[in-house]
Parts: sequence; C-alpha cells; structure tokens
Amino acid sequence: MRSTPENAELALLLEVAGTPKPGNVDRRREYPDLGFDHLLAGAVGAREGFDMAADGESIGTAFQRAIEGMAKQRGGNTQFGAILLLMPLVSAAGTGALSPERASRVVDATTVRDAVGFYRSFDHVNVAVGDPPPGVDPPDVRLGSDAVPQIRDRGLTLRDVMEAGTDTDGIAREWIDGFPRTFDAADRIRALEGPVSERGATVFLELLAAEVDPFVVTQHDRETAIEVRDRAVEALSGQQDVDELAAEFVERGINPGTTADLVAGALFLALEGGMAV
Amino acid sequence: MRSTPENAELALLLEVAGTPKPGNVDRRREYPDLGFDHLLAGAVGAREGFDMAADGESIGTAFQRAIEGMAKQRGGNTQFGAILLLMPLVSAAGTGALSPERASRVVDATTVRDAVGFYRSFDHVNVAVGDPPPGVDPPDVRLGSDAVPQIRDRGLTLRDVMEAGTDTDGIAREWIDGFPRTFDAADRIRALEGPVSERGATVFLELLAAEVDPFVVTQHDRETAIEVRDRAVEALSGQQDVDELAAEFVERGINPGTTADLVAGALFLALEGGMAV
Repeated sequence: MRSTPENAELALLLEVAGTPKPGNVDRRREYPDLGFDHLLAGAVGAREGFDMAADGESIGTAFQRAIEGMAKQRGGNTQFGAILLLMPLVSAAGTGALSPERASRVVDATTVRDAVGFYRSFDHVNVAVGDPPPGVDPPDVRLGSDAVPQIRDRGLTLRDVMEAGTDTDGIAREWIDGFPRTFDAADRIRALEGPVSERGATVFLELLAAEVDPFVVTQHDRETAIEVRDRAVEALSGQQDVDELAAEFVERGINPGTTADLVAGALFLALEGGMAV
Repeated sequence: MRSTPENAELALLLEVAGTPKPGNVDRRREYPDLGFDHLLAGAVGAREGFDMAADGESIGTAFQRAIEGMAKQRGGNTQFGAILLLMPLVSAAGTGALSPERASRVVDATTVRDAVGFYRSFDHVNVAVGDPPPGVDPPDVRLGSDAVPQIRDRGLTLRDVMEAGTDTDGIAREWIDGFPRTFDAADRIRALEGPVSERGATVFLELLAAEVDPFVVTQHDRETAIEVRDRAVEALSGQQDVDELAAEFVERGINPGTTADLVAGALFLALEGGMAV
C-alpha cells in the first residue's frame, strides 16, 4: 500500500494527466504560461506538506509548506485549491479511516495557528480570488502575512475563515459541508473502469455539468459559469464534441479550477480506499 | 530550491512527460499494459528510496526500497533502469556537488550489502534482462534474493556486479565509465530552450541517433537496435516524421528503454544544477 502522502501527491498527478478536461491543463492542452511540467513540479513540491499533515502537524502549517513547495516552478499557482481541499482529508487519513465525519472533525478542530499558516501561504503565490464583499468578517486573504496580527487579535480559526467563504468559494463550501461532492465523486471514480486518469476526466465533466464552477464565476462572471455548465451537459450527452470544447475553453481562458480540485480530492479518497493504479 | 530527492522524482516525471519519444510511453502514447498512469505512480513510489540515498543510506538498500515503491502499480517494471542510474547520482548529490568523479567514488565505494539490496530488488518486479553469457561471474540477477548467499560467500560488491554487465547493459556501462553520456546529455538539456519535458524528448532522439539502445538489443536483437538508431538519425534530419516513427515503434513493441533512462538521469543532473521548470 502507498502511504497517505504518496496518495495525495499521486492524486494531483493523476488529476492533471486526465484528458480531455475542458478548460484545464491536461496531458494534451496547456496555457502559454502554465504548462504540464509546472503541474508535475507543483505536485512534487507539495508532498512535504502532505507528510506533515499526515504526521499530525497543524494543517495550516502543513498547508503553508505544501504551497511553498508547490510554488517552486515558473507556472505560478498550479494546485492551490486542490491542496487546500486535500489537507483536512490527508490529516484525517493520518489517524484512521476516512469519512466525512472524521474530515469534518479536523475542520472543526482548526485553530488560530492554522488560520495563520493559511494566510501566510498567500505570500508564496498569486491566487486568483475575488474581492471580499464589503463588511465581510475575515481579512482579505490577499493580505497574506500582513493579516496575521488581525487574525491573532480576533482569534479567528481556519474554520472561521473558510465559513466566511462558502458563498463564493467551492473549496470552502466542501470544508464546511463535510466534503459531500468530493466523497460522491470518489464513489463515482471507484465505480468506473479503465485507467484512473481517464476516470478522473470523466468525473470532471460530470461535476462540471452538475454545478457552476465558482472559480469561473470569480475569473469571469456567473453568466460564463452557467454557459460552461450547460456546455458540459451538452458534451456529456454527445451534442458537443468534448475535444472541441476543451480547445475552445483554453482559447477563451475559461479554467474551471474548482472542478479540477474536486477531482483531485476524489482521486485521493479513492486511492486511500485501495483503488489500484 | 527543490531537495535532491524531489529533483530525482521530478526527473522521472519530466522524462515520461516528454513527447514524442519514439517507442516509449509518453504523454500521448501508451502500451496496452503499460500506461502513463503507471509511470506517474512509479515515480511517486520511488521517492522514499531517493530520500534514503540522499541521506547516506546504502545505495543498494535505497535502491531496493525505491523499486519496492515503484512496483506498487499494475504496469510492472516502469522505471527500474532509470532509478538504477539515478541512485549513485542522488547519493553523491546528498553530500556535495555533482561531478563524474564524485559519482564514480560512490560506485567505487559500493559494498556487498549494496549488491544484496540490488539482487533483492528483483524480487519486487520482473525486469527484462538477457541470459547471462555462460561462465560469467556474478549470479543471474533474475535469481533475486536466492542469489544473496552466493553474493555474500563470494564477497561481490555492487560495482563488481555492474562491471560484469558493461557489455550488454547501458546503465552498467554508465556506472563503470563515470556517467559520460548522462553528464553530456545534461549539458545538452541545459543548452536547449523551452519546456523541460520537450527538451528531454529532443535529447532522447539525439541519444537514440547516436548509439544503439542496449535494451532494444536485449528485447529484440542487434539488427533491430541498429535499425532504430538509423531511423532516429533520419528523424533528426527531417527525413522521417517523428510522430509516425513513434507510432510505428509502439506498434512493433520497440521500446528503447536505456535511452529513456539516460534522459531521466540527465534531467536530474540539470535540475540539481539549478535548471528552472
């Protein structure tokens, strides 16, 4: 059996290997400044943070280390959201079987220290996030380390920070809701047959067709995100050629990142559950 | 800076990502029973052995651990030769700068214990090797652990074992000769521009055109290996479409594995030398 950190890293690699995944980097499609090699290096660099989380280190600290390692390549933010989704799952797997309940317990147990690690991780990489709504509680994540005194003064935990993001951020929603889409997608991946990365690509399209991708809302707007969802429905039903859709989305810079993150999380759960590669 | 074990794992990943690499698994070509996913998992599994080698563990023991980890996937032998080539380089990098001299010193310092680890690694995976010539000194590697008493009785070091393989095995030759092709290929990779995995694919073709691949001799025969070299020369000069050549070699099961191993070793040296991804 592979170790938990190995499975977490492998999940990132299998996710990016899956093709076609309309709008995202995969084995056959790259953006001019974000290529396949960058995602390979990002996954390798994240592993040390996964080691820490599986060993019981603060998940905020482990996350910061993973992002620092991920960022040692020239593509910028390669897997920030996927690693954020994986962290509580890796931490829970480090001490026993994986379940939504045990993963939620990790989230509920987060502290101010975890929130500090999370904010500091933004020092290492530019992450595309929207402006926080006026009057929202936690400080803007883009402040990075500069937000740390405020986090400490106000005693905000990482769960507090995530809870404030559930309306706009799909990963935050998974954290707070007990990872329902991630666990469902893992069941689906296990039920499919064939090479694991291909199953990941299939489930990517299914997830994309099921809900609007919050990252597309952030990067573009809700209208675009709804179009993306509807086009994925057409691709699933065969009305739309999926390779053409992939080429079109890359050309338009439409990158459903949250959906890819969910696939990475689901691949990890399936691998931890004993799925062979 | 990435750590040495991170660079070793990343070298394996960037090697397999490079396309086209006629005859080998790459991002766009797979064998029915050996796919891209298997090579991703093989690279992830090898890392713990690289950690051990960089930390000064016996390279035979570290190698055995790397192969055990590599074998935790269903594709069989994915990267045996590449990991064997990398081990002395990773060990040398663990204690200082990389040079042919320092790598050779690691080879010269190998012991009986290293040879034992090497033979035991054959218990974890089927490796395609030719029959040893009659009367050759070290026991047949395919004996695996069963050869250990004989190795111990005769006091054979891993260098002794490798030296006996230099006529038929391209990795053994690199070990004994001071890794000349690996260091040359690293210089070439550094001199090229563009995504690192693409540079790897370019250098793969150059190496293939320069010498017959010993693994093709083992799996097929010398005549086939010479044809492969000559076709690579044609592909380099533009007389032969390289994608067509890749498709043809995969169809004929011609897999120039040693050449791919050299590229992985060269990518590692270039990464250790500070090449950015």
